[in-house]
Amino acid sequence: MHYNQISGQRFGRIEALSDGVFAIAMTILVFNLQFAKDHPTLSDAEMWTALKAMGPGFLSFFLSFLTLGIFWIGHSTQFHFISQTDRKMSWISIFFLMFVSLLPFTSDVLSHHIENKFSIALYWLNILVMGLMLYINWTYAGRKGLLSGEGLKEASHAIKRRIIIAQSLYGLGALLCFINTYLSLFFIVAVQLNYAFGIIASKQKGHAHR
Amino acid sequence: MHYNQISGQRFGRIEALSDGVFAIAMTILVFNLQFAKDHPTLSDAEMWTALKAMGPGFLSFFLSFLTLGIFWIGHSTQFHFISQTDRKMSWISIFFLMFVSLLPFTSDVLSHHIENKFSIALYWLNILVMGLMLYINWTYAGRKGLLSGEGLKEASHAIKRRIIIAQSLYGLGALLCFINTYLSLFFIVAVQLNYAFGIIASKQKGHAHR
Amino acid sequence: MHYNQISGQRFGRIEALSDGVFAIAMTILVFNLQFAKDHPTLSDAEMWTALKAMGPGFLSFFLSFLTLGIFWIGHSTQFHFISQTDRKMSWISIFFLMFVSLLPFTSDVLSHHIENKFSIALYWLNILVMGLMLYINWTYAGRKGLLSGEGLKEASHAIKRRIIIAQSLYGLGALLCFINTYLSLFFIVAVQLNYAFGIIASKQKGHAHR
Amino acid sequence: MHYNQISGQRFGRIEALSDGVFAIAMTILVFNLQFAKDHPTLSDAEMWTALKAMGPGFLSFFLSFLTLGIFWIGHSTQFHFISQTDRKMSWISIFFLMFVSLLPFTSDVLSHHIENKFSIALYWLNILVMGLMLYINWTYAGRKGLLSGEGLKEASHAIKRRIIIAQSLYGLGALLCFINTYLSLFFIVAVQLNYAFGIIASKQKGHAHR
Repeated sequence: MHYNQISGQRFGRIEALSDGVFAIAMTILVFNLQFAKDHPTLSDAEMWTALKAMGPGFLSFFLSFLTLGIFWIGHSTQFHFISQTDRKMSWISIFFLMFVSLLPFTSDVLSHHIENKFSIALYWLNILVMGLMLYINWTYAGRKGLLSGEGLKEASHAIKRRIIIAQSLYGLGALLCFINTYLSLFFIVAVQLNYAFGIIASKQKGHAHR
Repeated sequence: MHYNQISGQRFGRIEALSDGVFAIAMTILVFNLQFAKDHPTLSDAEMWTALKAMGPGFLSFFLSFLTLGIFWIGHSTQFHFISQTDRKMSWISIFFLMFVSLLPFTSDVLSHHIENKFSIALYWLNILVMGLMLYINWTYAGRKGLLSGEGLKEASHAIKRRIIIAQSLYGLGALLCFINTYLSLFFIVAVQLNYAFGIIASKQKGHAHR
Repeated sequence: MHYNQISGQRFGRIEALSDGVFAIAMTILVFNLQFAKDHPTLSDAEMWTALKAMGPGFLSFFLSFLTLGIFWIGHSTQFHFISQTDRKMSWISIFFLMFVSLLPFTSDVLSHHIENKFSIALYWLNILVMGLMLYINWTYAGRKGLLSGEGLKEASHAIKRRIIIAQSLYGLGALLCFINTYLSLFFIVAVQLNYAFGIIASKQKGHAHR
Repeated sequence: MHYNQISGQRFGRIEALSDGVFAIAMTILVFNLQFAKDHPTLSDAEMWTALKAMGPGFLSFFLSFLTLGIFWIGHSTQFHFISQTDRKMSWISIFFLMFVSLLPFTSDVLSHHIENKFSIALYWLNILVMGLMLYINWTYAGRKGLLSGEGLKEASHAIKRRIIIAQSLYGLGALLCFINTYLSLFFIVAVQLNYAFGIIASKQKGHAHR
């Protein structure tokens, strides 16, 4: 009873910390959007031009919000089945959150240097490590018997497969930067929108990511 | 039982993420208020002048805080009646929060270019999309049978009507920018204060938005 | 049962939003502390000098953290006794939070213009409005019968008296700026430390503010 | 019953405020990472050079995220055993959080002046005060009989010993700055990684810090 009580409580606090970090990371993405502050008087036409010039900023804002949404859902889906945690689980989540809170940085680099392959590589690396941490979280919890819940067995396979397929697609998207960086980004956004709206998704994948 | 447990938990986390994003968006509005940092020594009279020059900044701070307050209440009112969620509901909320977190940006543009119709249009577009997402959230939940609670039927009509009437008034307010941008903003603030204090509000509207 | 369920839930979300806004306002106070970024190479002695020059910044950081701590405790103490909320209560809290989120701004003005009476006046006005909103929150809840809990009657008097006495002392402190602004600030900090540590506090006051 | 109810609730709000402050402090560390914004066009090779020049920034980001993770776990571990709180406990936590929210500042100083002993001293002072506040929190709660839970007695010794040993190691690490500041930082990071992964940890320490 003692252990359950402790784990249960810790469990709640990891989720609270995660929701906090995700909420902040999502909201501070907006700081990357800076609009012509040093020009106090602009005509409406000049403002429209200035706004259009912010295209890369909006694209990376949109991309990163989707990314954070996907990983927030991924993290909280795992916690449906996690009935206990231990010290190492806390640290896996903290390292996961470290890369969540790095995303506004890699997103900022991307928006300022959107035509550099280097920016895509950096951003992709960020996504890769987040996926890796989620995978480690899930396999560690499984190995230590910290998971429970109805439909766990199927969910377990679906969650792992989901991470691997998604990461393969992100990797493929990143490789497209050798052709064109915009192509690369649009491909990644398309993959994310597909996951968000569940357009092309087998029932099982949908289940794992519900 | 399994599904309810999962939805119930997810339900709580969407609310936690929303409260987080709203709290941050509200608080970072203050960053748009920048006071004469590059003038270390000012007389009290000069400070008063500098403060008065920040009028547009304070107006858009006030306006945006009211906006966020109204949409926070609107979102949480819907969640009173939402007894289950699914993956798509999560994504509707994430897209809603995307535009919540954009508000500090459109508010910043407004405060720096308060006499441009373009700023009003951008700000109004932000409010419009937030209203649209709330409307989609409510109708989707209704169609999928995810709503429950006493008085749901009347609440359902009142919530929809509330969104449509409020958005019509915001649209009307935005159109006033063709006469004068300040007139436009004061009209929108007046509408919001009316909703906040419930001065001119039928009983039913009050019920839906309690 | 329906109403209790709704109020109960709303109750929790007002607290969540408040905790969020307070946590962010507290944490972004740190942005007012800017250390010699444009001088990449400094000796240790020069760093010590630069740090000492930040005295006003640290003073206003410390002052504002205490202020936010006091008002956070004040707000959450009231919510111990608030067993129901309605739409107007939500809006009273939102207006209260508006001035909580303004504090990093008035604190920033203070730290950059610490020898101006104007800064003290602005900061004091911020504290005054926060106190006023708490007072309105408590009297409104009392009048509408939304309060309950053991020891409510004594708590009610103590909470009101506490706000009035504290605000009188803050007002007195603010007036001291006509002699010297530092005297004014040290007086206010002393009042706050007294409340924090409960050095000179009647049992009843301690009860109300526990 | 009345007191328990109040303390229980307050208890929850201290944890909510703490999780909020930690989440924000962790996430705003990223603002210290600024990447070549004033150079809009860079080749991929130049970007790689610019990124490498950010080494001190990444090191202090990593160090500070670990620090915040360790103290977040430390604070929440104590709250497992804290079954009641009083006004002074709230203030001990608020003063603890004051130094948590200072960490992005001391971390920023460190990243910009990583070869100055002064930066190490300032950073170490920040860690020292956080440790001190946790120690005060635990001994105060123990003295007032606010602790309960299975295994409290062993946990109590382990928690105190843990703080003392960790702080001794941090102090030792800080002293290494008289040889070399990087050596100092790598030593502190090594100590933290050891705590995070529990490589060299007696069973009892692991228990206390779970």
